[in-house]
Amino acid sequence: MSQLPEQPAEGPVPTSADVARLAGVSRATVSYVLNNNAAVRISDPTRRRVREAAAELGYVPHAAARSLRAGHSRMVLLPTGNFPSGQLHHRFLHELESGLRRLDYTVVQYGSLGLDADDAARAWAELRPAAVIVPGSVPLAPRGTAVLRRSGAKAVITLGPRPVAGAHALIMDQRKVGDCAVRHLLERGRRRIGVVMPEEPGLALFAEPRLAGARQAAAGTARIEPLPLRHDEESATALAARWRLLGLDAVFAYDDVYAMLLMRALQDTGITVPGETAVVGADDLMLGRLLRPRLSSVRMELDTVQSLADLVDRLVRHPGREPERHDLLSARAVHRESS
Amino acid sequence: MSQLPEQPAEGPVPTSADVARLAGVSRATVSYVLNNNAAVRISDPTRRRVREAAAELGYVPHAAARSLRAGHSRMVLLPTGNFPSGQLHHRFLHELESGLRRLDYTVVQYGSLGLDADDAARAWAELRPAAVIVPGSVPLAPRGTAVLRRSGAKAVITLGPRPVAGAHALIMDQRKVGDCAVRHLLERGRRRIGVVMPEEPGLALFAEPRLAGARQAAAGTARIEPLPLRHDEESATALAARWRLLGLDAVFAYDDVYAMLLMRALQDTGITVPGETAVVGADDLMLGRLLRPRLSSVRMELDTVQSLADLVDRLVRHPGREPERHDLLSARAVHRESS
Repeated sequence: MSQLPEQPAEGPVPTSADVARLAGVSRATVSYVLNNNAAVRISDPTRRRVREAAAELGYVPHAAARSLRAGHSRMVLLPTGNFPSGQLHHRFLHELESGLRRLDYTVVQYGSLGLDADDAARAWAELRPAAVIVPGSVPLAPRGTAVLRRSGAKAVITLGPRPVAGAHALIMDQRKVGDCAVRHLLERGRRRIGVVMPEEPGLALFAEPRLAGARQAAAGTARIEPLPLRHDEESATALAARWRLLGLDAVFAYDDVYAMLLMRALQDTGITVPGETAVVGADDLMLGRLLRPRLSSVRMELDTVQSLADLVDRLVRHPGREPERHDLLSARAVHRESS
Repeated sequence: MSQLPEQPAEGPVPTSADVARLAGVSRATVSYVLNNNAAVRISDPTRRRVREAAAELGYVPHAAARSLRAGHSRMVLLPTGNFPSGQLHHRFLHELESGLRRLDYTVVQYGSLGLDADDAARAWAELRPAAVIVPGSVPLAPRGTAVLRRSGAKAVITLGPRPVAGAHALIMDQRKVGDCAVRHLLERGRRRIGVVMPEEPGLALFAEPRLAGARQAAAGTARIEPLPLRHDEESATALAARWRLLGLDAVFAYDDVYAMLLMRALQDTGITVPGETAVVGADDLMLGRLLRPRLSSVRMELDTVQSLADLVDRLVRHPGREPERHDLLSARAVHRESS
């Protein structure tokens, strides 16, 4: 948390040679100190002198030059995709970033929306990351994994509902969410259960396994009815208008936002919740508690994330291994008033 | 959109020399073709031969090596901060990324939460970006701007409610939001107006100028009362419990999410909306249309973003200039039922 000096923006860019000269040490020593290389023993006074010289000159090491010298980078690349990230994903990301930063990695995100799987993989490979963690909403093909590995990435890791050949997989098994919602509804005595399937592109990746989990939980004891729905009032009103023809007594509404949309439309049509139809969302957002009736939901939790940073580090340091698979997600129903 | 070959991940990492050998051209030609250097005339058949050789070998250029050779990078760094990004910011980001990608920049985001202003600036400088675009929720001091400039950044640009000394400023003047909300309430005949001030850290940056804009619009013709509120039900219930003592006939609730929270608490306390109290949010989210009464809101629009990519490019190409300031935000009231 040392301070940087007030400096004019003009003048030549300072180099590590300038720092070495001012501190009276070798360039290698400057590099060891500023890159926090713990393998080399350097006295505290020397470390201090190098740090002070760097601060005085306004010098910071060059990550790319360092990685070129080292033959590999400390960059972990996180492509980002379609959607504004929710609270869960945001917290996950922040904790992964902090954990990896403590292990001296630099984590950068790369917006990959609008690129196809091959162009995206090539764009990531240009940055020569040590590891790439690809969320499920971003396309990755086995070809892309191969290109990344050939360009020097030690670990290609997917983060999402399903694995990709050749890559390590951090699985967030969305079937658990559907399973959990439907088990809850079965316990509440419901037997004819709609499952909202958002029509927005990209969400099928999550909606399909949630439906599969719902079907698995019902396992012949209850009817499961997929219900396509767009995220707009017109679509919700149309679904509500034919609700009684569907003969359902419950709905798992994909998530809390779709649940709010559908519950509003059902109520406006005169259908009582939970009397005629129980409603369950997912994500356990605060907005669910503000609805009347208060929304039942499925709460998702992820594994503690320092262990994830350690996992990424281990995969980078042992790049030859077989693809690993780790299951991160757990889910539980939160019962409120709508079910 | 050419396809990448199916490749094994093993074997040595291919280099541009391998591509040059296979295509029967010089390494410089490989570099010109794969880096889309339009300044050098190379025949279409040669370009095709180079591309095919690169595809066959699974070679992608190395962005860092390219930038070391060129003496500057094509990286535009976007630090990210505290909050999950909303729709507006997400769309803005995506369009800026696409616009800059068309101009052959690589845009990366860097999660900077948990770093102080100096450490953050140093971490960004390590990546040697050509430009840094710092959102208002991420700390930047004039010292940090100087360090970035000295490490070679051609443009340091802030994006938020207020400028930082030495940096270009893309201003999203939040006063307009408060001004717009209060003008709307004045038109509806309200004269005693509460303004919600979220207590969550980081939001003061937006809330304070919204309040200033509200005061400016009221300009002695109406009372403006700041109302601290945390984003939880307890805080909203406590505020609603003392609502009638406050003697207000309207509230600008900071944004639609806080508006939903407060409107629910007011209604649960028996206060009619808009009868006793008009409520206006901001962001014009879909959830506002699902509330009853439907929520009035302030809709924000940003400048078309291709022009922004051009602006960033211009600032990078002419780094010596005085800090520029551009106003991006416009706001308008959307009247529904709650006001």
